[in-house]
This record gives sequence, structure tokens and C-alpha cells, in this order.
Amino acid sequence: MTQISPDRWQLPDGVDELLPDAAWRVETLRRRIVDRCHSWGYELVMPPMIEYLDSLLTGTGETMDLQTFKLVDQQNGRTMGVRADMTPQVARMDAHALRGDHPNRLFYTGSVLRARTDGFGGSRSPLQFGAELFGHSGAHSDIEIIRLMLATLSEAQLAAHTLILDLGHVGVYRALVEALDLDDGTGTALFSSVQRGSLPDVQALLAQVPQATQNNTAQLLGGLMQLRGDTAILSQARSVFANASSAVLTALDSLQAVIDGVRATYPDIEINIDLAELRGYSYHTGVLFAAYTQAGDELARGGRYDAVGAAFGHPRPATGFSGDLKMLADATQHNVVTKKGIFVSAGIVDAAWGEIVRLRESGERVMTELPGIDNAQQASQCDRVLVQTQSGWTLQTLA
Amino acid sequence: MTQISPDRWQLPDGVDELLPDAAWRVETLRRRIVDRCHSWGYELVMPPMIEYLDSLLTGTGETMDLQTFKLVDQQNGRTMGVRADMTPQVARMDAHALRGDHPNRLFYTGSVLRARTDGFGGSRSPLQFGAELFGHSGAHSDIEIIRLMLATLSEAQLAAHTLILDLGHVGVYRALVEALDLDDGTGTALFSSVQRGSLPDVQALLAQVPQATQNNTAQLLGGLMQLRGDTAILSQARSVFANASSAVLTALDSLQAVIDGVRATYPDIEINIDLAELRGYSYHTGVLFAAYTQAGDELARGGRYDAVGAAFGHPRPATGFSGDLKMLADATQHNVVTKKGIFVSAGIVDAAWGEIVRLRESGERVMTELPGIDNAQQASQCDRVLVQTQSGWTLQTLA
Repeated sequence: MTQISPDRWQLPDGVDELLPDAAWRVETLRRRIVDRCHSWGYELVMPPMIEYLDSLLTGTGETMDLQTFKLVDQQNGRTMGVRADMTPQVARMDAHALRGDHPNRLFYTGSVLRARTDGFGGSRSPLQFGAELFGHSGAHSDIEIIRLMLATLSEAQLAAHTLILDLGHVGVYRALVEALDLDDGTGTALFSSVQRGSLPDVQALLAQVPQATQNNTAQLLGGLMQLRGDTAILSQARSVFANASSAVLTALDSLQAVIDGVRATYPDIEINIDLAELRGYSYHTGVLFAAYTQAGDELARGGRYDAVGAAFGHPRPATGFSGDLKMLADATQHNVVTKKGIFVSAGIVDAAWGEIVRLRESGERVMTELPGIDNAQQASQCDRVLVQTQSGWTLQTLA
Repeated sequence: MTQISPDRWQLPDGVDELLPDAAWRVETLRRRIVDRCHSWGYELVMPPMIEYLDSLLTGTGETMDLQTFKLVDQQNGRTMGVRADMTPQVARMDAHALRGDHPNRLFYTGSVLRARTDGFGGSRSPLQFGAELFGHSGAHSDIEIIRLMLATLSEAQLAAHTLILDLGHVGVYRALVEALDLDDGTGTALFSSVQRGSLPDVQALLAQVPQATQNNTAQLLGGLMQLRGDTAILSQARSVFANASSAVLTALDSLQAVIDGVRATYPDIEINIDLAELRGYSYHTGVLFAAYTQAGDELARGGRYDAVGAAFGHPRPATGFSGDLKMLADATQHNVVTKKGIFVSAGIVDAAWGEIVRLRESGERVMTELPGIDNAQQASQCDRVLVQTQSGWTLQTLA
């Protein structure tokens, strides 16, 4: 055998394996979330791990392209991608295999791979879970999806009153900027300046744009960049944008409706508003949201993305959320694993088989001994042992 | 928007997506199998989707190399592979992260990808499930693993008495051939001739090997190639190999012990023996087994692979099985999906929220209406509707 280098078994950066305790915690949480989504009338789908690249990246933008591992299909030379996000796949399923006019409520869970370690807490192999609601464009579908997100998080013992819900809306920035009809370069530079929070850069860029001066855009964007805080921010926003276009006011109305809807069923949740939050701007079209722990760990996020349906050839409004099950399981220390069970010594396994089958089917964990292994009973960590007595098979408690 | 080619949404060959009914059938079956393995004292592990190639392919042979999609880690230029089989990954976990002297019983389920469509019924994206037992070399661990395989198949409503269990043992062929000390080329050619069932080719090849004439190997291999049939074949084998080396006889004893062990708890199962079956010869070291339907569909398969632990730097005997959950779900028409549920009209959702939460937590499926959608109640396929009466919230049956 060749010599084994010391790092030979090291996993790539951002890639992990789950040993029994962690795996069982994730499995338990996964089931709870699946059951919760099912109980809301959402239907489970299982999109493929790989697709042809032109299908996989439709409507997702450059960020997802950079995040996607590429493969060549040896059978025809076409380029495939490993899914880096299941949301666009589910949108494709809604637009094609499940095509219809009525709303589709879909959820999913599965491994995704990321070529880079940004996002998802540095993981390149998240176990994504999420839900998407297609075919409804009003605030009520955003409210339903946010409520479902909070319900799934409560399955991880993370009650809504312990969470922080961040809300934004890409529509305000979009309306202000679209009125300027910028070229792509200026558009990108402006977006970057707003994301960096650099007002001088914003002002310098817009000084070159006559329409911006006329619209007072620099001042409005300056206002936008300061509009972060609790829900009271929204009334400030109404005065800052009092003379802005109707699209801006529609976005603010929509955000207010979502706040009211969430508050109606989760009155205790802490809500933060950030109107300069523009995550997934190329993709999202309306409300954005994310749930955090008090310690600032992101648990799930999502938003409205009405344009993706059109990219798939079947225009459909859409809203949804997703998160990483592994990260979520880490965020909670509940779901304690207890390694209890019933030990059966090798000599009686076949004779006791009927009883062993019955015990296992009743939900017990039964470990049968293999001959020739020392201290097998102790190593099994079982708390009971099956023995034969005059009255039949009996369980005896182990010390 | 650019024009969309008609095959743009086609999935690659051997790659599928599961729509709600199929996905729910797979999910239900997955849980049953996970629960069954857990009840046998096996522990769930979740190996990574990708690993560095030298780790992923250790001890697996050339077949797995050809089956594995390769990726480059952009962060350091090293070659990674997408897992094409989780068994070697679990063996690595046993040899490293879970290293110990006692037996480890591990199981897993997850997506794997195959670069080629051979095996797994032509699927390139199976949802693999399986279990492995490390650290015991006797027939008892093979028996336990085969029994567990049959128990997991019974979770798919495939009772043992409806199945065919194929059994083989690579040890007979291995012992006959190793005694000849063949060069690699002749070894490969001989293996291929036996797999093709071509006795003239076997004879022509061995005519060049003096040791083969002395050992009467051509005649013995000719006998081996005819040794397929029911368990009575084993007594024929004993007379064919009466003067063969002790390694051959040990293999036959071991196969007999496995047959007796399986029969002890599954007396009705049909068992076929095939001593020329050498699937995974580079990898397997002992008993081979596979479960089929009467129609000949393979449901799961496995065998002993004692050499892989050594390749991972921690010699451990090992035996295990695996299959494709999607194929298994297809093989059974049980687990019927019923789309029942409770419909709640949009106007009362917030007022009824407490009742809705209670119903969902009791296991009911509750769909809340979104405003502005025509015929939502009918489209929901719910069988009941929540209404407010003088006595409070009540469920009314829908026609």
C-alpha cells in the first residue's frame, strides 16, 4: 500500500460529515419540519441533484453561476450543474411539471453544493430545507410563507418570541433607480455603493445623471440608507418618500401589510426593518425577510421573486424561504439522543426471534450480540437485556 | 428574453425529479427504513456529498472511479469527487471518526450521483439507503446484515416469502485463482471469461499456465461456472471441490452457515446460489447477496468487504447492503397518498389561528385560503371546512 498522507482523510473546506448523535438530531428535526410543512397543506417535491446548466441557472443571476459546481455529461458533452439552491428548481417544477393556474404550495429538503464558502455560515454542503408558494401576488402569500417559516423554526424549539425577524423590500430602491434609466455600469456601481452604505459615492455617481438631480434621487437614497430600525421606521419612510413615485408607496404599503399580518399571529416577535437591504436583488422583486437568533445567527431567509416564473416561460408570482437544516440543528441543543436499548445475547437470538421482531415493531431498539466479541453487552450501552424465564421472554434492567 | 429551446427543461439521462405523490411515497418509505435500522441498534450517519478524490476512491477500484463525477476545488485546485456510493464513505467514518475496536453498526440514506447509467436500473441519481456492520468477521454478521436487508424490504411491503435471495461467495474463485499466481493481464482476461461464462476461453487461457494444469483449475472453474441453482447446489459444490484447497472449503462452509442463519428466521424465502457471481470482485472478499422480486427487479444488494478497512489504515472486517429508495418505492404500490385536509377561508384565518394551530399539531392538514383566488376550496381537494358556529369552531364535511 502507498503511504497515506496525514491530510488524506481531511474533508474539503466547508464540507462536513455527521456522526451518529448529530445525524440523529438532524434527522429528528428534518421529520418535524417535513410534518409541519405537510400540515400546512404544502406538498413535498424532490428536485434532481444535477440538471443541465441552462435549466439550472435560468432566472437566478450571476451569483448562483459562480456558486455552482459544473460537470460534463459524458453521454453528450453538455454542461450540467450540481444544484447550489433548490428554490429555482422548485420554480421550474411549478412552471413545467406542475403547471397550472391555481397556487402551488411546495416544500423540499435535500443536499446542495456550493463552489464557494460564502453564505450559509461558510458551509459548502448545506442540507437545505424550504417552502415556496406560487401563483399569488398579494401580501397574504408573503404573510403565509413567513408564518410557515416561523412555524418550522419552532420545530427546532426556537419560539417566535426568541427570534428577530428582519424585513425589507427591494421595491423601494428598484422604483427610485428604474426611474433614472441608468446604463448597466452605473447601475452596478450605484447598487454597490448603496450596499456598502457609502453616501459620498452615491452622490458622486448620481451627480452625472441629470434625471437623478431632477428626481432628488441622491437625497432619497441617502434617506433609504438610514431607514433601518424597528417598525416605527415605516412612518419615517412615508415622510422621506412622501413625494416619491407610486411604486415606492406601493412597496411601503405592502411591507406594512406583511408586518400587520405577522403581528396578528406572532404578536411577540421582534421585527427589524432595513430598506437598504437588497440581498438577491437580481432575483427578488418584493418583500425580503430573514429570521435570526438573538445572538445574530441566521436561521432561514427568503423573499418574493415574481420574475422567475416568466424566465421559465410561465409567468407566476412566487414567494418562499429556505435555510440549512444542519445549521438549524446546531442552533438548538434540544433533541437529546438517548442510546437506550435491549441487548440479546448471541446464543438466544434465533430462539427469541419472534419476541425480538415484536419488540422492534413496538418501537424498541434491540441489539443482538455477535459471537466472539468481548464486553459486547457493556459496549452496546443498552439499559435492558432479554432473558428467558419460566414465564417466557422477560426484560431485565441492567445496572 | 432569449428563445427557449424545446428540450431546455429536459433532465439529463438517468436523472429524475419526484413530484408530490412520488416524493411522499419515497419520504414515507424512507422513514420506515430509517426507523427499522434504528430499531436494530444501527446508528444513522450522514457522509458528505463531496470529498477529495483520493479519500473517496480509496479501496473501491476502477469501476467506482469511472462512475464518479470529478470537480475541482476552486479554493486549492485539488480534485474532488461527488459520491457515487456511500459505502466506502461509511467505511472511512468507521476507520477514522468512529475508530474503535468494537463492532460499529451504521446506516445511511442520501443522494448519490453516477457519471454513467449502468447499474441501479439506469439511474444516475439514486437515493441510496444501506447499512454496514464493521468489526466482525464471522458468518453471524453476514446473517445479521441479510436479515436487516430483508427487514428493510418488508417496510416496502415486500415480505421475504415474495422475494428471491441470491447468494454467492467470491472466496471460491479467489482461492482457485490465487493459487496460480497469474500476471495481471491473464488474471483480468480469466475473470472476464468466467463472467462471460465462456469455458473454451477459460481453457485456452489456462493451457498457458503450468500450475493450472497441475491443479486441474480449468476443470474446477468449469464446475464453478455451472454451480448455480437452489441451495442443493452446495452439496454438488462439495463434491466438485472435494480435493480443492482449504480456502475453497472454508468459503463453502461460510456460505452454508449464512444459508442456515437466514433460513432460521426466514424459512419461506427462495434462495438461489451462484458461485460464479463475482460482482465487485476487486472490493468484495466473502459472501455476496442480492434481493430480487419474482419479476427479477433487484431491490438491494451487498456483501462482505474486509479489505477496505485496511486501505483506510485501520483493518476492519465489514459487511453491508444498499439499494435505491426511489427504485424500491416504485416496486411497491402501497403507501397510497390521500389528499385530505381542512379548508379555512381567507376571512377567518387570523381569528381562527389558535384553532388552526391546534388542528395542525394534532396531525391534521389545514390549508388556508389566499384572497383573490377563484375556486380555491375546490382546488384544495380538502374534505372538510372550518366554520364558526354559535358553539365555536366546527368542522363541516364537504360533499
